[in-house]
Amino acid sequence: MDGFIGEFFGTAILILLGAGTGAGINLNKTYAKGSGWLFVCLSWGMAVTMGVYVAGLLGSDGHLNPAVTIPFAIFGLFPWNEVLPYLAGQFLGAFCGAAIVMVAFGAHFKETKGEENGNTVGIFATMPAIKSPLFNFLSEVIATFAFVFILLNLGNFTTGLKPLVVGFLIFVIGTSLGTTTGFAINPARDWGPRFAYTILPVSNKGSAHWDYAWVPMCGPLIGGFLAAALETAVH
Amino acid sequence: MDGFIGEFFGTAILILLGAGTGAGINLNKTYAKGSGWLFVCLSWGMAVTMGVYVAGLLGSDGHLNPAVTIPFAIFGLFPWNEVLPYLAGQFLGAFCGAAIVMVAFGAHFKETKGEENGNTVGIFATMPAIKSPLFNFLSEVIATFAFVFILLNLGNFTTGLKPLVVGFLIFVIGTSLGTTTGFAINPARDWGPRFAYTILPVSNKGSAHWDYAWVPMCGPLIGGFLAAALETAVH
Amino acid sequence: MDGFIGEFFGTAILILLGAGTGAGINLNKTYAKGSGWLFVCLSWGMAVTMGVYVAGLLGSDGHLNPAVTIPFAIFGLFPWNEVLPYLAGQFLGAFCGAAIVMVAFGAHFKETKGEENGNTVGIFATMPAIKSPLFNFLSEVIATFAFVFILLNLGNFTTGLKPLVVGFLIFVIGTSLGTTTGFAINPARDWGPRFAYTILPVSNKGSAHWDYAWVPMCGPLIGGFLAAALETAVH
Amino acid sequence: MDGFIGEFFGTAILILLGAGTGAGINLNKTYAKGSGWLFVCLSWGMAVTMGVYVAGLLGSDGHLNPAVTIPFAIFGLFPWNEVLPYLAGQFLGAFCGAAIVMVAFGAHFKETKGEENGNTVGIFATMPAIKSPLFNFLSEVIATFAFVFILLNLGNFTTGLKPLVVGFLIFVIGTSLGTTTGFAINPARDWGPRFAYTILPVSNKGSAHWDYAWVPMCGPLIGGFLAAALETAVH
Repeated sequence: MDGFIGEFFGTAILILLGAGTGAGINLNKTYAKGSGWLFVCLSWGMAVTMGVYVAGLLGSDGHLNPAVTIPFAIFGLFPWNEVLPYLAGQFLGAFCGAAIVMVAFGAHFKETKGEENGNTVGIFATMPAIKSPLFNFLSEVIATFAFVFILLNLGNFTTGLKPLVVGFLIFVIGTSLGTTTGFAINPARDWGPRFAYTILPVSNKGSAHWDYAWVPMCGPLIGGFLAAALETAVH
Repeated sequence: MDGFIGEFFGTAILILLGAGTGAGINLNKTYAKGSGWLFVCLSWGMAVTMGVYVAGLLGSDGHLNPAVTIPFAIFGLFPWNEVLPYLAGQFLGAFCGAAIVMVAFGAHFKETKGEENGNTVGIFATMPAIKSPLFNFLSEVIATFAFVFILLNLGNFTTGLKPLVVGFLIFVIGTSLGTTTGFAINPARDWGPRFAYTILPVSNKGSAHWDYAWVPMCGPLIGGFLAAALETAVH
Repeated sequence: MDGFIGEFFGTAILILLGAGTGAGINLNKTYAKGSGWLFVCLSWGMAVTMGVYVAGLLGSDGHLNPAVTIPFAIFGLFPWNEVLPYLAGQFLGAFCGAAIVMVAFGAHFKETKGEENGNTVGIFATMPAIKSPLFNFLSEVIATFAFVFILLNLGNFTTGLKPLVVGFLIFVIGTSLGTTTGFAINPARDWGPRFAYTILPVSNKGSAHWDYAWVPMCGPLIGGFLAAALETAVH
Repeated sequence: MDGFIGEFFGTAILILLGAGTGAGINLNKTYAKGSGWLFVCLSWGMAVTMGVYVAGLLGSDGHLNPAVTIPFAIFGLFPWNEVLPYLAGQFLGAFCGAAIVMVAFGAHFKETKGEENGNTVGIFATMPAIKSPLFNFLSEVIATFAFVFILLNLGNFTTGLKPLVVGFLIFVIGTSLGTTTGFAINPARDWGPRFAYTILPVSNKGSAHWDYAWVPMCGPLIGGFLAAALETAVH
């Protein structure tokens, strides 16, 4: 139960602040409208930092990410019987975080035309800079591989100031490999808010682009698997 | 007495550096004129970090914020008999910090026309990006809820390097949920300097917009209450 | 002797990286030409961080600044018999750091016309955004007061990760109160490089503006004095 | 063997994230296209941080850089019999990191014309802002001297949060002295990816500019030597 609660609130905070960043950049008349990629990456990084602190203190391992939880279980780094509550907490938390963003930015959603320039779906879910299924998939595999492999070399990352290091890890994944697909590197971070965008009422809603959603689901899972496999082999 | 002194100097430092940031961005001919939202949030974040260090070493708990002090007292996380000196220190410190900003930027205030573009009141007090009482209020409730809920999960936040984490927390609240109302998330941070702007002599003064001031007072208090309530329920 | 060596190398590193930042922003054809105030403040902040690490490990207290050393001595926080070697190390180190910047950026100095737009003196010494002796002086007093008062509340700032906090302190002083005069807040940081600019051969040299130099000398010393006085009174 | 493995994976991560940053900035249609020097330096800094964490946990000293390893050996700070596996790991790791960047950004390389504007070689190897062999060489000597001298004063830099400080050290070297030559300060960081760019198939490939490559090889080695010599003399 601690696992579910920690992952739920941690991921909700992550998405509340992360999708909130997206809303600030994309919606009309906000104070951050049009801010650049440095802003995006630093803000998402710190959103993860705060999510990890919350999850850690509420009693979970601060994964916030199925591409961490599942590969860790496969390689014996995490107990299988905790996997389901973790995943439930992650997807549900991401969904709720996204829903609250819709309330907080209600006035700004009304001011923004969504249509097919897609700028409101981009607040919640990732989209590739160049649509190319093969390369988009490879980018997500590689970015998540790097993320999980480094994460496995940080030691216990939920205590002391280590969550800050995790935040800077997200930052640098974003500023480097994340410039191709917008660094989902986390199926819950993408699917939870994408689902919220699909079923909840938002002004000027456009397509949720579920045709692309297999990439931020499969890429991160495979990337995380490869990272845990390599770590196991090397250590 | 330690509580009053710590909160007074901590909040004075917070506003001296925070409103100083606003002055640097808004007033004419400064070296930071027109810097963007990343600049604002990083600078306010570090202003809070420094305020927490000062308050902590002078003997207070480093709240610097009635939306922390009052909800903490309600839920038994802080003694009621300390509430009044804390609040007094917070509002008085914020007032004094703002007053010193007026001196430090004296030459630049003279160079800046204030009128109804409102740019000099914005140095001291928050204003919404879109005027919409309901959504502005909700934004402040949600942003403060997130801030206080995370703060409650950081552990003791005044010692070691934790004040740095508090600074990055302020940063990410600003870069995400803060892009709607300018993240007061603190009644003293808004009312102290707004009052200073109202009664002290400043060049090219405009309206202090007290009609909006209920939002940065009530929103943060309710948001902080909800956060402390949830924390108590979950832990 | 340790004091002299620590302060010498620490301040040399501080100015090598700090004035190097100025060179990168002001000289033609560098990779950072025209970068903004966020860049300047973050870079100067980290320059101080690195200077403090070097000074601390070489055996000094990591002041790097007469506006720290002298007021500390006056209020009994530092032994008087160490003051002279500290000051000598600070001014000499600043001079040498500036000299090395001239070598490292030799090709870029040649590409830059200096004349009275003053852009090459600005690499080494501070200049006010608005020339106003009274307010410039007050700005330096207030900025240094805030800097030294916070520094006194950081605890031992040369060990562990505290030099990082000092760096962020410099950053936020720069992004707030520093937007008026360019935050000398340190007589050695200003006079050492200004003197180097005066007597060493640099391409396209302009005036060193010694008429302004009393401000970054007297303002910081008085600001530091007031901070140490207040700290003594409050604690 | 631990030394080789740690240096190999650490340097591979460093270049994967570092050259990935370069790809994000230079290639067409990425989300970070055209981001500035602050972005570059912060991202490279954190890339090094993550490389140091990985190397440290896998059992090496986290050099990732021949200009650290060789001078350390010369001055007795590192055993000679470990030098070869370290260097092999560094160059090979850098090569592999660069190769993976070519895959991750495959779609974007196709969208980018390389020719003699040189923007695709710049992703992998350094180039001077002004071509001037003498000053380019001096810049690399000075920048690496500062880097290694400070590194030697950080204490054990692979554990706790010290890798974060190393990242900020790289950042500030980049924002100051690095604005002339693009701060190679590391022969492996330059030659490994430059060699990968030379022999691997990349869309729109231009010249690898090996005529310049002696600077990022000799400058850093001499700078590192001088820093270790000074450190030995002073301590």
